Amino acid sequence: MISNAAVYRGDKTFSLEQKHVSAPGSGEVQVKVAYCGICGTDLHIFLGHMDQRVGFKRTIGHEMSGTIEAVGEGVDGLAPGDRIVVRPLDHCGECPACRAGHDHICHNLKFIGIDTEGAFQEYWNVPAHTIHVLPADLDLSHAALIEPLAVACHDVSRARVRPGEDVLVIGGGPIGLLVALVARNAGGNVAISEISESRLAYANKLGFTTINPKTSDAAEQVNDLTGGKGADVVFEVSGSQPGVDLMTDAAAARGRIVMVAIHAKKPDVDMFRFFWRELELFGARVYRPEDYEQAMRLLAEGVVECSSFITDIQPLEDIQGAFEALTQNPSAIKSMIQITRNDT
Amino acid sequence: MISNAAVYRGDKTFSLEQKHVSAPGSGEVQVKVAYCGICGTDLHIFLGHMDQRVGFKRTIGHEMSGTIEAVGEGVDGLAPGDRIVVRPLDHCGECPACRAGHDHICHNLKFIGIDTEGAFQEYWNVPAHTIHVLPADLDLSHAALIEPLAVACHDVSRARVRPGEDVLVIGGGPIGLLVALVARNAGGNVAISEISESRLAYANKLGFTTINPKTSDAAEQVNDLTGGKGADVVFEVSGSQPGVDLMTDAAAARGRIVMVAIHAKKPDVDMFRFFWRELELFGARVYRPEDYEQAMRLLAEGVVECSSFITDIQPLEDIQGAFEALTQNPSAIKSMIQITRNDT
Ligand SMILES: [Zn+2]
Ligand SMILES: [Zn+2]
Ligand SMILES: [Zn+2]
Ligand SMILES: [Zn+2]
Repeated sequence: MISNAAVYRGDKTFSLEQKHVSAPGSGEVQVKVAYCGICGTDLHIFLGHMDQRVGFKRTIGHEMSGTIEAVGEGVDGLAPGDRIVVRPLDHCGECPACRAGHDHICHNLKFIGIDTEGAFQEYWNVPAHTIHVLPADLDLSHAALIEPLAVACHDVSRARVRPGEDVLVIGGGPIGLLVALVARNAGGNVAISEISESRLAYANKLGFTTINPKTSDAAEQVNDLTGGKGADVVFEVSGSQPGVDLMTDAAAARGRIVMVAIHAKKPDVDMFRFFWRELELFGARVYRPEDYEQAMRLLAEGVVECSSFITDIQPLEDIQGAFEALTQNPSAIKSMIQITRNDT
Repeated sequence: MISNAAVYRGDKTFSLEQKHVSAPGSGEVQVKVAYCGICGTDLHIFLGHMDQRVGFKRTIGHEMSGTIEAVGEGVDGLAPGDRIVVRPLDHCGECPACRAGHDHICHNLKFIGIDTEGAFQEYWNVPAHTIHVLPADLDLSHAALIEPLAVACHDVSRARVRPGEDVLVIGGGPIGLLVALVARNAGGNVAISEISESRLAYANKLGFTTINPKTSDAAEQVNDLTGGKGADVVFEVSGSQPGVDLMTDAAAARGRIVMVAIHAKKPDVDMFRFFWRELELFGARVYRPEDYEQAMRLLAEGVVECSSFITDIQPLEDIQGAFEALTQNPSAIKSMIQITRNDT
C-alpha cells in the first residue's frame, strides 16, 4: 500500500513522500487517518528541540481521528470501517511502573508519533490495544480533539476537582483551555491566568474569569475572588518560573497543584509554602484509557465548542506552511491537518 | 505564683528569672512542667535566626510533659495531678483554613512556645483545648518525646505508608529517625540517607538500612534496593538542595514525597521528573489531635527506644550550657531539660 506521508527531515522541514505501508501485522490495525491536530510537542519537534529523540526520517503526529482500513491476525472486536481514535501509548508490560498498574507512565514507554511512526500520513499501522471506537455521531474533525482533551481529563482527575471548588489554571493555551473546560464541567469555579491578550479574549468568550499577571497581582486577585482562601486546585500549564511562583502563592491551605507543564529547566519552588500550607503537588502525564472514554463523552456532550476551538484545517500538502504559520501566529488555538478526504 | 523560668534575651543567651504567673484564667489550665526537650526550632531561636518573630523576652520550649497544677473556670474533664502533655497550637477558628477543618495550619496560628510563652519554666498557663492526658504508666521524661513523635506521625499519615512499601527518609536527625520508626511501624521497608557518621551509626543500631550520599550514589542505591522501582514514599527531612535532588531521583512512578523540612530558600526542583513519573508531593506541618493520640500509643508500645534516644537530661539551671553544647555536638539525638523535680 502506498501512503502519502509528511516526513520530518530536521531544520524546520517536512518533506512529502510516498511511503510503502505493509499490511497490518499480528495484533495490529491499519488506520486510514482522517484528521491530525498539531500539538505543542509537534511544534517542538519542528523547531529542532527533540532531534535526538526523533531523528530525521520520522513521520510525527498523534492528535488524530480516522477509520479502520484493515485488521491484522488475532484482532477481535474491530472491523474495517470503524471510526476510531488511537491512544498513542505503547508500554513494555514488564517494568516496575507497568507491574504497579501505571502503564501509561511505563519506564520504557514509546509515544507513538514521537518515538515511532505517527499520523501525518494516510495509512498507519498501530497496535490494536491503542484503539478507541468513536460514538456514531461524532464528527471526525472534532474527534481529533480527543487526544488533547484526554490530557485535560487526566489532569483534572489527578486533582479530583469537586463541585464548588475554586480552580486556577495558569496558562491559557490549548491544553490550559481544555483543562479549564473539564474542570468547569466537574463543578469548579474556574479562573484562567494568561498574559496573551488574544488568549485572554478567547477565555473570556468561553465565560471564564481571567487574570492577567502582567497588569495585576495574580495571587491577590485569586485571594479577592476566594475571600482570602486561595484556590483549592491549581493547574500549572505555563511552564514558566512566574507560573511556578503563582502556583504556590495562589493555593489555599491543603490546595492541590497539578504539574501539567513540561519544565525542561528546574524551576525554583517555594517549598516553605508547601510546608506552611500543607500544599499538595501531583505530576500528570498523558492519559489512561478511562481518560479517553471521558474525553469522547465530554466531546459528544458539547463541552468543547469545536467550531471556535479548531482555528483552521489545512490539507496534508500544506503541512509545512501550517507549521510555519503556527510558529508566527500565537493566536491560533488548534490547527489541524486533513490527511484524507473521503471520510464520512 | 512564682515560677523559675528561662528567658531568651537574644544573642545566644538565656537568663534565669523568677516570673509571676497568674492563676489560670477561664478555659485555661496551669501546668507544672516536668521535662522539656530542645527542638531544632529552639536552637534556631537561640542562634538568633528568629528574633523578629520571638523578641527578646520570651520563654520558649514546647516538647514538654508535666502535671496539671490548677484548672480555670469552665474547664471540664481535667483535674490537678493529671499527667499531661500540651499540643502547642492555638488557632483562630475563623480563617479559611480553620473553616475548612485544617485548624492545625490556621492562617493565624499561634505556636505556643514560639509566638507565646513556652515550657522552659515551672508553671505555665495554656488553653485547656491543647491538653492530652497521658496513659498512666508513661514516664514523664519519655512523654516529652510525644511532640516530636507526633510530628513524625503526622508526616507518615500524610504519606499514607502501606505495609511492604519501600520508604526513603532523607536526613537522620531526631525528626528523620522518628519518621523512620513510625514508617517502619506502619509496615514500610525503611532506608535512611544521612551524611553524619554518628547519626548513620545510630540509625544502623536501630536496624535501618543506611545510605551515605557522600560515599555512594544514593539514588542508584535506592534503585538497587528496590529492583529498579525506586522508593514508594520519600520523606525530605534534610532541608538541603542535595536532599531535594534525591527526593525526585529516588522516587518510584507515582511515588509520594513528603516535605517535612523547612526550606527557607527556594530550592531548584526537578519538575520534569514530577511530570514524567507522576510524582506526588505533600507538605506536612505540625500535627492534628489524632497524631498526638497515635504518638502516645506508639510511645507506650515501645516503638521508640527512649533510653538511647534521649541523649542527656539537664536541670533548668544549666539550660544555657545545654544549648551551647548542642550547637557544638552534632552527635546528640535529643537533649532534654528537667524543669521540676517532684514528678512521680
Ligand atoms: Zn499532544
Ligand atoms: Zn513498562
Ligand atoms: Zn519541635
Ligand atoms: Zn484560623
